[in-house]
Amino acid sequence: MKSQIIDGKVISAQVRSEISVDVSKLKNDYNIIPKLAVILIGDDASSQVYVRNKQKSALSIGMYAEDYKFSSSDTTESVINLIKDLNNDPYTNGILVQLPLPENFNKEKIIYSIDPLKDVDGLHPFNVGLVSLGQPRFIPATPFGISEMLNRANINVEGSNIVIIGRSNIVGIPLGNLFVQKMKNFNSTITICHSRTKNISEYTKNADIVMAAIGRANFLTVDMVKKNSVIIDVGINRVEDNSKKSGFRLVGDVDYESMIGFVKAITPVPGGVGPMTIAMLLKNTYNATIIQNRK
Amino acid sequence: MKSQIIDGKVISAQVRSEISVDVSKLKNDYNIIPKLAVILIGDDASSQVYVRNKQKSALSIGMYAEDYKFSSSDTTESVINLIKDLNNDPYTNGILVQLPLPENFNKEKIIYSIDPLKDVDGLHPFNVGLVSLGQPRFIPATPFGISEMLNRANINVEGSNIVIIGRSNIVGIPLGNLFVQKMKNFNSTITICHSRTKNISEYTKNADIVMAAIGRANFLTVDMVKKNSVIIDVGINRVEDNSKKSGFRLVGDVDYESMIGFVKAITPVPGGVGPMTIAMLLKNTYNATIIQNRK
Repeated sequence: MKSQIIDGKVISAQVRSEISVDVSKLKNDYNIIPKLAVILIGDDASSQVYVRNKQKSALSIGMYAEDYKFSSSDTTESVINLIKDLNNDPYTNGILVQLPLPENFNKEKIIYSIDPLKDVDGLHPFNVGLVSLGQPRFIPATPFGISEMLNRANINVEGSNIVIIGRSNIVGIPLGNLFVQKMKNFNSTITICHSRTKNISEYTKNADIVMAAIGRANFLTVDMVKKNSVIIDVGINRVEDNSKKSGFRLVGDVDYESMIGFVKAITPVPGGVGPMTIAMLLKNTYNATIIQNRK
Repeated sequence: MKSQIIDGKVISAQVRSEISVDVSKLKNDYNIIPKLAVILIGDDASSQVYVRNKQKSALSIGMYAEDYKFSSSDTTESVINLIKDLNNDPYTNGILVQLPLPENFNKEKIIYSIDPLKDVDGLHPFNVGLVSLGQPRFIPATPFGISEMLNRANINVEGSNIVIIGRSNIVGIPLGNLFVQKMKNFNSTITICHSRTKNISEYTKNADIVMAAIGRANFLTVDMVKKNSVIIDVGINRVEDNSKKSGFRLVGDVDYESMIGFVKAITPVPGGVGPMTIAMLLKNTYNATIIQNRK
């Protein structure tokens, strides 16, 4: 059997292209241009790359994007003061703080200070609660991207048995809260496994869909899954590779090669879930703009 | 094997007695008396009984309790205006709105208008989100009560396989969000089954703990569960019984009699989870008082 490869690069390009059409309509019809504010604290190299990519992507589809930088020696209060200004700025529609933060900053205080109507990462407790209550407003980018991929790959999830590996606040838990809901394109039985689960393969072997977000290279092997199941790989792990100039290559949480020909569909790493996340951030920013201007 | 009967009447009496000690300490040491405001809209007979019981229980452990009544012909706005006053009243520590509401009232608008620091039912999205984020402040009464019963019955849940049947916003979903957390006395693998789950017994047969909250009389039978598992029955269903003066009797979602001798522990109906809920509401009201006076 041929396994369907769910191509995140192609799907995310489609999503971005659709949003760019919506953005130009919004500009033409109402003279409104969505604006995303990205806050970067400290000098973590990966965070700098992520922030630059988010900004570039927003600009490339016709949005405004502004970055705001703080050094590690700044304070939680100074960040919150900026956020208050951005909350009150009618031209700023989305606000995100690039994580992780340097140790001396209070992540909760900072995230909770964002106006929930501008919280395009969906990390504010109010928005987290809305997902859990079945009234999602801003779904965190990774779960949102996975749902979009499954839809566009024509994989019907309603009534399916989904096993999620990992219980992080940005992936595992919101995935469960989303896919369990009595809503079109969700409506699944969900199981959340994690480090304290005794025998993970007993769960994954019965799953129609496995979503792996545990952060361990090649963790999920073909002997752990059911024939014709669907595999979503959220992991991004560095493994040593002397054939590469960098000395490493990126692999997922799934032993990809072993799955091909056995599973119905699978997302690769890189080029799977990863590229979806920025697209869904832009979608949330567009939606935030609509919500704020509807009031 | 003898099945352990987890007695909600005894455990809830212990909890209430402990809170009453805390309440009298609070009064003696700081001259603070927790106050619960209970809002009743319309003339549903069961709701009137529930509200009266909550008030009586609060008074019986030394708290203040006030009820506020609206008729079905009142408006959402009039309820919200009262809630705003109660939010601003420093002597009111807990606010709850008895559900369900008459059709012409907007439940979301009303619940969302409660100050999250006074939302002792734990239904405001901010508090729902905090449970999901692993920072619970006010856990809804039923999940909170179940956790308390398991602790006091010395049932270790960490590392266990919990299967929850039902996905309501007040029971199934918060149970999952609570018991999956990496926290002492939780830390379980959780599965949420519901009306769209294809073969529920395939899940329940492997469960160490089954929590049934599906609202169907005697749904869970002994052939669906594992020997020595723990059964938590959240259901309260009326079944016809001509031997009773009322013409009915109350049964749970679990076929109780068939389980005895086969399971390790079980909660009866009535006298199991039910009596815990008011005790946990009072605990939340006490905690709210502490939080508000700590600021």
